[in-house]
Amino acid sequence: MADRKLNFASDYTRGAHPDILARFVDTNMMKTDGYGADEISEAAREKIRDACHCKDACVQFLLGGTQANAVVIDAFLQSYQGVIAAETGHISAHEAGAIEASGHKVLMLPGADGKLRAEDVRQYADGFYRDDNREHMVMPAMVYISHPTEHGTLYTREELKQLREVCSRYRMALYVDGARLAYALACPENDITLQDLAAYCDAFYIGGTKCGALFGEAVVIPDPERIPAFFTIIKQHGALLAKGRLLGLQFDTMFTGGLYERIGTPAIREAQRIREALVEKGYQLCFGSPTNQVFCVMENSRLEVLGREVEYSFWEKYDDTHTVIRFATDWSTTPEETDALISVL
Amino acid sequence: MADRKLNFASDYTRGAHPDILARFVDTNMMKTDGYGADEISEAAREKIRDACHCKDACVQFLLGGTQANAVVIDAFLQSYQGVIAAETGHISAHEAGAIEASGHKVLMLPGADGKLRAEDVRQYADGFYRDDNREHMVMPAMVYISHPTEHGTLYTREELKQLREVCSRYRMALYVDGARLAYALACPENDITLQDLAAYCDAFYIGGTKCGALFGEAVVIPDPERIPAFFTIIKQHGALLAKGRLLGLQFDTMFTGGLYERIGTPAIREAQRIREALVEKGYQLCFGSPTNQVFCVMENSRLEVLGREVEYSFWEKYDDTHTVIRFATDWSTTPEETDALISVL
Amino acid sequence: MADRKLNFASDYTRGAHPDILARFVDTNMMKTDGYGADEISEAAREKIRDACHCKDACVQFLLGGTQANAVVIDAFLQSYQGVIAAETGHISAHEAGAIEASGHKVLMLPGADGKLRAEDVRQYADGFYRDDNREHMVMPAMVYISHPTEHGTLYTREELKQLREVCSRYRMALYVDGARLAYALACPENDITLQDLAAYCDAFYIGGTKCGALFGEAVVIPDPERIPAFFTIIKQHGALLAKGRLLGLQFDTMFTGGLYERIGTPAIREAQRIREALVEKGYQLCFGSPTNQVFCVMENSRLEVLGREVEYSFWEKYDDTHTVIRFATDWSTTPEETDALISVL
Amino acid sequence: MADRKLNFASDYTRGAHPDILARFVDTNMMKTDGYGADEISEAAREKIRDACHCKDACVQFLLGGTQANAVVIDAFLQSYQGVIAAETGHISAHEAGAIEASGHKVLMLPGADGKLRAEDVRQYADGFYRDDNREHMVMPAMVYISHPTEHGTLYTREELKQLREVCSRYRMALYVDGARLAYALACPENDITLQDLAAYCDAFYIGGTKCGALFGEAVVIPDPERIPAFFTIIKQHGALLAKGRLLGLQFDTMFTGGLYERIGTPAIREAQRIREALVEKGYQLCFGSPTNQVFCVMENSRLEVLGREVEYSFWEKYDDTHTVIRFATDWSTTPEETDALISVL
Repeated sequence: MADRKLNFASDYTRGAHPDILARFVDTNMMKTDGYGADEISEAAREKIRDACHCKDACVQFLLGGTQANAVVIDAFLQSYQGVIAAETGHISAHEAGAIEASGHKVLMLPGADGKLRAEDVRQYADGFYRDDNREHMVMPAMVYISHPTEHGTLYTREELKQLREVCSRYRMALYVDGARLAYALACPENDITLQDLAAYCDAFYIGGTKCGALFGEAVVIPDPERIPAFFTIIKQHGALLAKGRLLGLQFDTMFTGGLYERIGTPAIREAQRIREALVEKGYQLCFGSPTNQVFCVMENSRLEVLGREVEYSFWEKYDDTHTVIRFATDWSTTPEETDALISVL
Repeated sequence: MADRKLNFASDYTRGAHPDILARFVDTNMMKTDGYGADEISEAAREKIRDACHCKDACVQFLLGGTQANAVVIDAFLQSYQGVIAAETGHISAHEAGAIEASGHKVLMLPGADGKLRAEDVRQYADGFYRDDNREHMVMPAMVYISHPTEHGTLYTREELKQLREVCSRYRMALYVDGARLAYALACPENDITLQDLAAYCDAFYIGGTKCGALFGEAVVIPDPERIPAFFTIIKQHGALLAKGRLLGLQFDTMFTGGLYERIGTPAIREAQRIREALVEKGYQLCFGSPTNQVFCVMENSRLEVLGREVEYSFWEKYDDTHTVIRFATDWSTTPEETDALISVL
Repeated sequence: MADRKLNFASDYTRGAHPDILARFVDTNMMKTDGYGADEISEAAREKIRDACHCKDACVQFLLGGTQANAVVIDAFLQSYQGVIAAETGHISAHEAGAIEASGHKVLMLPGADGKLRAEDVRQYADGFYRDDNREHMVMPAMVYISHPTEHGTLYTREELKQLREVCSRYRMALYVDGARLAYALACPENDITLQDLAAYCDAFYIGGTKCGALFGEAVVIPDPERIPAFFTIIKQHGALLAKGRLLGLQFDTMFTGGLYERIGTPAIREAQRIREALVEKGYQLCFGSPTNQVFCVMENSRLEVLGREVEYSFWEKYDDTHTVIRFATDWSTTPEETDALISVL
Repeated sequence: MADRKLNFASDYTRGAHPDILARFVDTNMMKTDGYGADEISEAAREKIRDACHCKDACVQFLLGGTQANAVVIDAFLQSYQGVIAAETGHISAHEAGAIEASGHKVLMLPGADGKLRAEDVRQYADGFYRDDNREHMVMPAMVYISHPTEHGTLYTREELKQLREVCSRYRMALYVDGARLAYALACPENDITLQDLAAYCDAFYIGGTKCGALFGEAVVIPDPERIPAFFTIIKQHGALLAKGRLLGLQFDTMFTGGLYERIGTPAIREAQRIREALVEKGYQLCFGSPTNQVFCVMENSRLEVLGREVEYSFWEKYDDTHTVIRFATDWSTTPEETDALISVL
């Protein structure tokens, strides 16, 4: 069985938070309208609007991160426009060309620890508008960032504000991929709130899949006039769930009693313990992640032995004899699991 | 609440069969690999291969019907090829241009009661290959049918065989959309088995969403060499579920002990009772559906009153004073619900 | 050699009007800016604006009809929108899926003699907006017609106005494919002027390829604010000519001294003579074309003999023993060529 | 007038070589079949096959470079595959997203003086096939290079051979953009022949637009079985010229008597004179181009003055007070024009 071994391979290995699972059970025999037109989904939308202090926002529930990115980016961009992202951004590297499949170029910039710098974006946009050949080039019309990033790092509120300013200056939309947003919200280093996201972004999504839901991401578009046919765009991308309430009930649960904002706490706590243990044992940490992803350098000879005890993720080659690997904690990680991991490191 | 009223609006108003729900509960805290690489998904694939008598088939689980159609059709067609479908086919009318979004034309032919006739397909393909301008036209390279059709009607095994022959003759793939396949399998009129589908089709999908699952469709490609990069194509379409086992466990349950082949029985029985009641009360039935969808003509003045008691679907205008409406039963419809409906007809 | 035989196969068999050819020779060694930024192209644009009484229009020169249609339709439609066209429309049948290649569905309606009826369009749009499922369907956002049509027939000014009214009512753009526009303008039956097209359409193109140019079509968008990035859209479609002046000089010539409005005269005169001869000889004419395309029914046995003397176009099967064929005249057809054709009919 | 001033802005400012212009005049009133099915086009194809020592090659004539790249790349790639190119490659930077518009990602690698290194390509492909997540990534399936490059530099035959070997090893197609190929063939440093291109590439195009034609590029696919529906793919991209012979006659002329292989000679000679003059006057050359493009660094204060006398191209910012500019010669550049340029440098 896959779970006989310690498993820190990713943050989507378990099912859902027990409160969510209970809602699946409780609502199973209800009959409701399809495609998110049900009352549960509407209640969830309202709670998200409240949490974001954004009472008119368009909120739609999609099924996964790559899908959310493809749908939102396609919705915002005209056919001849592209989206700026860090080279390490999920859309740049690990979505199998989903953005290009709807005709849009990902304009990749080098990042720093997974983050896009406002100054780099400004220079790119400025260079574009100064270039006499710009009508022969892809117009940058959106900036994509992840919070936390793919490297587990966090933007500061000030950095987000700077990106917003650059976007406004060059008429670009700002879009935040919040696949692991709960782990930012539960992290002491984080100073970006849901309200900040609603204030600074043209669109963002609140991650469910990696944050305690079975599946699902809540896309928030603060200005509902911005994308009037969003429902049809979702349908055209094959991204509309017939029994839409299954998404609604998960987000309704996560936005009841502030669950979403505290669900990541165990993950942050256990990740911090792993980091401390690694440092103590003399391993080198990478990327400076304060969230639920822990990156470190391991000797290749050590990896094989470790792999017999614990599932981890290969991240990238470090040098000829070392590799960067990742341990991921999640909302369900227990201190006992961490103890077991530490004992084999 | 949406379910205070009688609801025969569609076959995706309730959650999942209790056995499936139980599996969600039982497996919730397991840790497994993502993206369908888990043991539960593999077990489900193996059971489907067994049920189809097709031991090498590629089986992949997708989330919904429009998505399955878009992914499969894009996987099989080259950029310059199109897919033949009935004008009433789901891909022709109700998928918001999902097929065109990946660049493929839907070549629409008139159908009969929702069915595509082999002879019409033959004439179309023959006309194409006889046309001197064919290199300026979209090459027909796939035939799409639904079983049961969008009108609830059924192909016969002989008709399926004839379509296969036309497809083979003109080098077209044959693809069957089985969104409601369980309702065909549970219908006495049906003579097409899962093994027939595997024998005659290049691809088909076994519908879960409308047939007792929470969500999910199992795509079967009998010849696994046919689409070598199918996994990446799924990913590129944003159609890959992170916690893939959630799909696997549903199909594993439905293909244990032959559940899938009998799950539609209540729906067929109750639909038949509704049809008999309608005829008895003097209403005119439409399309000759023997499956879980019941179509009839109603006076518009009658509809308003009826709408206060029961949720039904508007289908199409019949004439200035009449409308075609639909009642749908499903795997969970009870005799008591049917009694209540009949009493208000 | 291809031209030893009489050739009435199409209206793009010869090169260019002598005045155009002379301009190629005269300007050959000039050095000008590329991509249409030269003075000749600008002069041509200005003359077209004058001829259309539309002083602010955006005018861009493209290379051919399928390209013009693909670029204009993609420029006007959002990703989830489609274009209504007659089943016989060029974009419906003979552009190899070029419209679908940029993601847009062609919503086909039956026409009458190649023409789309305003009332049919109205019913389609009305049906769409009355349909509860419209958010699951492709939104009609443009109407495409050809003038003359693919059958050689002409819209009346009144019919164009009615289409405009329907388009305005349902927020659809009206686009006219003028591949053979010169043959309408030279036809006594025609009452639609260039000014009418500019007044009633959101976009149209003035055909060059079939009307005396070597190649080229002039796209006119009366409201230049409508498609701000049109140049980049052209580039993205691979439709931008490096030596743009080659297009400019052809339209500059055709719009000097009113050449374009009279260039089709010989074609109309000779086509009329062919029609009269056919009727006199007892052949049945088709489609009622008053322009440069002549359609008639021929016995298949007769076709083989005729084919030894003259190149014509196969159009469609009429019945088992007869075929509809087409003779096309053009700006260069001489009375002597017509005499020769008539003598072999 | 645009040509009152000295103009070294690009290599597409003049019309066609006089021999080509004469063919336009001579053939103008011929009647031929459309779409390249004429005898002139067939003769041109045959001459190109002979020049390439590749008697079965598929040869098709397209209208421009961006179009040729978009059509060829779309023809070779499956929907989920991408093309590797240098960051400075034309498809990476200056085609307005034409490759992405048909759904394909351009996988950009850093180059050296505009050239892609075989070793970099090998590492990228190797990294892809070693990456456990490769099924979530865009599969590299083609390598795109330009010869000469966008920086005017040349690959050696040995470098081309190494790229071929990497491509074969990782099942990628090798495609060469020969927009300025005549300037390579006329350059003493070049050791790659047309036969080499046919031997090492899966596809390449022989540039006309910048090499003496009015417009047009000849795509050569040595193995004609490789892309069976290439004609339809061309049509679908809106890239099919109705009067196809206009392309045929230009390439027929350029491949008669070896014109194409010597047409670039004046450009190379005059570019060399400009380079020598620049060095003598103390300017710094860039990129080491031996072909018809001359790049040098100029003080910004100098540029304004120079711009009154001569048209040149802005290339890129060098530092805060200097700019890289380009002078381009072409097949028609005269020693007198060069003298005049040198006198104002």
